[in-house]
Amino acid sequence: MSGPGGSLDTGTGYGRPRPSSMHELTDVGAGTPMGELLRRYWHPVGLGGDAAATPRALRVLGEDLVLFRDGGGRPGLVTARCAHRGTTLYYGRVEERGIRCCYHGWLFDVTGHCLEQPCEPDGGRQRERIRQPWYPVAERYGLIFAYLGPPERKPALPRYDALERLDPGESLEADASSIGGGGPAVIPCNWLQHYENLMDTLHVPILHGSFSGPQFTAQMGLMPEVTWAITAHGVKATSDRRLPDGTVHHRVSEAVLPTLRVIPNPRVAQYARVESIGWVLPLDDTSFRIYTAGRVRRPGELASVRSRLSGKLWEELTEPEHQRFPGDYEAQVGQGPVALHSEEHLVSSDRGVALVRRVLRQQLDALAAGRDPIGVCFDADAPPITFEAGNFLHAS
Amino acid sequence: MSGPGGSLDTGTGYGRPRPSSMHELTDVGAGTPMGELLRRYWHPVGLGGDAAATPRALRVLGEDLVLFRDGGGRPGLVTARCAHRGTTLYYGRVEERGIRCCYHGWLFDVTGHCLEQPCEPDGGRQRERIRQPWYPVAERYGLIFAYLGPPERKPALPRYDALERLDPGESLEADASSIGGGGPAVIPCNWLQHYENLMDTLHVPILHGSFSGPQFTAQMGLMPEVTWAITAHGVKATSDRRLPDGTVHHRVSEAVLPTLRVIPNPRVAQYARVESIGWVLPLDDTSFRIYTAGRVRRPGELASVRSRLSGKLWEELTEPEHQRFPGDYEAQVGQGPVALHSEEHLVSSDRGVALVRRVLRQQLDALAAGRDPIGVCFDADAPPITFEAGNFLHAS
Amino acid sequence: MSGPGGSLDTGTGYGRPRPSSMHELTDVGAGTPMGELLRRYWHPVGLGGDAAATPRALRVLGEDLVLFRDGGGRPGLVTARCAHRGTTLYYGRVEERGIRCCYHGWLFDVTGHCLEQPCEPDGGRQRERIRQPWYPVAERYGLIFAYLGPPERKPALPRYDALERLDPGESLEADASSIGGGGPAVIPCNWLQHYENLMDTLHVPILHGSFSGPQFTAQMGLMPEVTWAITAHGVKATSDRRLPDGTVHHRVSEAVLPTLRVIPNPRVAQYARVESIGWVLPLDDTSFRIYTAGRVRRPGELASVRSRLSGKLWEELTEPEHQRFPGDYEAQVGQGPVALHSEEHLVSSDRGVALVRRVLRQQLDALAAGRDPIGVCFDADAPPITFEAGNFLHAS
Repeated sequence: MSGPGGSLDTGTGYGRPRPSSMHELTDVGAGTPMGELLRRYWHPVGLGGDAAATPRALRVLGEDLVLFRDGGGRPGLVTARCAHRGTTLYYGRVEERGIRCCYHGWLFDVTGHCLEQPCEPDGGRQRERIRQPWYPVAERYGLIFAYLGPPERKPALPRYDALERLDPGESLEADASSIGGGGPAVIPCNWLQHYENLMDTLHVPILHGSFSGPQFTAQMGLMPEVTWAITAHGVKATSDRRLPDGTVHHRVSEAVLPTLRVIPNPRVAQYARVESIGWVLPLDDTSFRIYTAGRVRRPGELASVRSRLSGKLWEELTEPEHQRFPGDYEAQVGQGPVALHSEEHLVSSDRGVALVRRVLRQQLDALAAGRDPIGVCFDADAPPITFEAGNFLHAS
Repeated sequence: MSGPGGSLDTGTGYGRPRPSSMHELTDVGAGTPMGELLRRYWHPVGLGGDAAATPRALRVLGEDLVLFRDGGGRPGLVTARCAHRGTTLYYGRVEERGIRCCYHGWLFDVTGHCLEQPCEPDGGRQRERIRQPWYPVAERYGLIFAYLGPPERKPALPRYDALERLDPGESLEADASSIGGGGPAVIPCNWLQHYENLMDTLHVPILHGSFSGPQFTAQMGLMPEVTWAITAHGVKATSDRRLPDGTVHHRVSEAVLPTLRVIPNPRVAQYARVESIGWVLPLDDTSFRIYTAGRVRRPGELASVRSRLSGKLWEELTEPEHQRFPGDYEAQVGQGPVALHSEEHLVSSDRGVALVRRVLRQQLDALAAGRDPIGVCFDADAPPITFEAGNFLHAS
Repeated sequence: MSGPGGSLDTGTGYGRPRPSSMHELTDVGAGTPMGELLRRYWHPVGLGGDAAATPRALRVLGEDLVLFRDGGGRPGLVTARCAHRGTTLYYGRVEERGIRCCYHGWLFDVTGHCLEQPCEPDGGRQRERIRQPWYPVAERYGLIFAYLGPPERKPALPRYDALERLDPGESLEADASSIGGGGPAVIPCNWLQHYENLMDTLHVPILHGSFSGPQFTAQMGLMPEVTWAITAHGVKATSDRRLPDGTVHHRVSEAVLPTLRVIPNPRVAQYARVESIGWVLPLDDTSFRIYTAGRVRRPGELASVRSRLSGKLWEELTEPEHQRFPGDYEAQVGQGPVALHSEEHLVSSDRGVALVRRVLRQQLDALAAGRDPIGVCFDADAPPITFEAGNFLHAS
């Protein structure tokens, strides 16, 4: 080295390679590998009440859609642009039989059939040739689920034991505020940054413990022993924390395909099977939101578990306070719009994250080989899916 | 099909092809087919008063320009960046003989000649080699017209009978508020979405009738019989509405090349030849505005015809009210920044739209063949152009 | 020419070629020619106080960085994204030994060594393999300087006589408000537009004289005789103004590589060697800011020389006032995000600008040939650099 002498700096930022992302795992658009995988499952796209007499504009997996409920009570989900001249049906009028475009009055039913073309002779003699692109929807657990995939691979809408079997005094509640996201309802980063965080069990005592004060119960602040495993539906993390009295706080969390958060409430010191399920909905490649359904004992209980940092809700914090009390929102949005995976250094405590990616890649391979991904079931009468997730107290 | 059984959904949004636009008809930049066609005509770029002692920044057909009026009363239109070092002349100072750049003081006259270079010896011995790019302008009907095309094909600035022959008590008025656009002065979508709407006669009873209440006269709410035809200057639509007393409301509207709205007032129950002309000015590929000149009986009459929806002007409506009372702005901006023509399904009532596109394509072909497009005339003494447009009452 | 007759317009804007920029001189990213040249020098990236217990997000030459000061008082500059999972260290916590990421608690010292991995067994047995990319920093003259280039070519941090040799009663002061930029602290255009302006001596009587009133001393409003020359460190401009009493106001300004403003105060009628040095820091290709250090007689004196236009500071002016009283900000931002050099017409009074570009190109050639650029010195004990810059009164 013909340098000018002196000790040479090592490890500086100079000359580092251009970073890249694992787009095959992150991107959600139609025709992309992950976009096609996600399209093999049902996803919640709104609360039941979001399908109403006023059209609602949605963005789902990079597609612009309009949700409504016709006069007969049927929810409808159609692509945003009218099949006639492309005006958005957001400005349409919901009627007894469907939604009518404001521009020339074409009327479509919830499965896209064109019922009227009022500017055409006889209301449109060839209107039956026209179809507004639509997607099947179904209502369950207070949510509107949609299927955006190939019709011939449409699975049955799954049932979950956690939401089907209620204890005395419990009722179901649905929420659209992105519980668990740590911030506003729409979170401006790629969905995978949140989803793989579900199996990133060991960040809890750091981010939610020593950094931003005890956001969760005191037990959660202890460093756990964690093991991870692939399950029939995704990945599970088992965390054991030895308590001062010699008992063991045994906690199981699951990341279920395609995007389910099966996470026991970290803020309540109860020992029970998981009480809620969250669905991470990618709006597009760089934003997502979370829909949640759960068993509650009083209305509003689901939303009441939203994080408070320094005693305040996220939207009440100033920027200096966000910097001082970061949560999941800051940690994950702080990875950038789409994480730069080429710059990561995964270690042994990241095995859960690595397993999530491995299971996702296995499903991409399954699709490429013409098989169905895990968790897809075509039997509408299949029994509800049971999860292992929960907080439990073990004797030793 | 090896599907899982059950009835198969048809017509869903899955797997639809990537949409596309007819960019040869929509894009307006220099060197594009439509950009070159539009550059063969004069376009209004401001009100007479917009050319003044304070430089005004304009965007026209995708070009950044500066409009001013020198101390001698001559309007000048130059490209925005100073020929010397590129500083925008928006910060220039208008003087007796032209506009002076703020940076080094170069002075340009209205045809771009460099008159002074005060930082150079002797005020610039070679300044006559410098030319600030400029465009010819002309004032008529209260508007500043500009020609951005090839000098050797510069047509005469047309005269129009509708604006030359005034009835007793009438005077001319000009307006820059985008009358007919249904929204603010600058409308954020491609100009063609508005221009072809001129021949989309049958949307009137829907969008402006059943949807947003009777915005126009009661007659306009009736479904008309419409015929369309190509004229010497563009396309015309003839709408006949049979009135309860047996007479016929006979209405002719015209879309004149390049971008003229020759539309009889739909809000006044008068029977007369068309009283105003609008020019749709593409600012760039995704925004436009409309300049209008017309015969009025009192000042402010032109602007007084602006649409009210639910009793309010567009800018007074809330977003829920815009959704409930859509107008031309919502219908056309709702087609997207540039409409996705590949997803359209034109029907018989869209013949007017199809004719507009056909006439435009014919002119593109004429240009490609080295011919001048229709409506271009090089004779400054040619008689005013007369339109058929108007509202008339026929006996049967 | 088969035109329609009439006189043909010449010099119009029609058909002008697509403009281009000299990106080899303007772009600052790693791996670009100018980006690599700039990376051969130290640049100030903050005031001494900006390195503190709260992490500070910086953008320098297109790179996202985080600046902090550890509990031991050492300033640290690291790339923004944590080497572990990419969360920005802006949300990190500064501790005695370094900065700790909020997500999983990895702790890095000021040279990027990973000291702790609290989620790993034994705090991370292989943590020494990890290095957070960092850059060397040094404090001098109240500023934090950083070196982002190849370690083996790291020069000594230069000393300057103007800041080392203080007259009685003088002290040093540093400023981050972009003195000389004529606007806000962050200026939204390419850095070169400002830097080459330093040698654009003749704009002063125009922009800062006849346009926006006498911003500087009365002498500066006189048109000077200017000569330019390449120096050992960059380019200098010598301006002589003959005063009414027959004496000569002799002024020397220098543009020193890489980005130094060595400009005598134009607002004070004192005759003395230059009292301050400014550094133009490119944040990225389309924005920059200026750090300044100088000798003062009272605190706050540096900032007190900020321009006032029509009696107001830049941020106090309305848009019409900015248009009427343009300054350096308007002239340079008015050249666009990156100037379009292909449209320029340089003349004899632009020789200073041309020399700046020539010297920069010479350094690009030097780098390409494997040599060091001018002004780079590897001897930490080299004497301070002395500049010729100053305002002086000559007898004739």
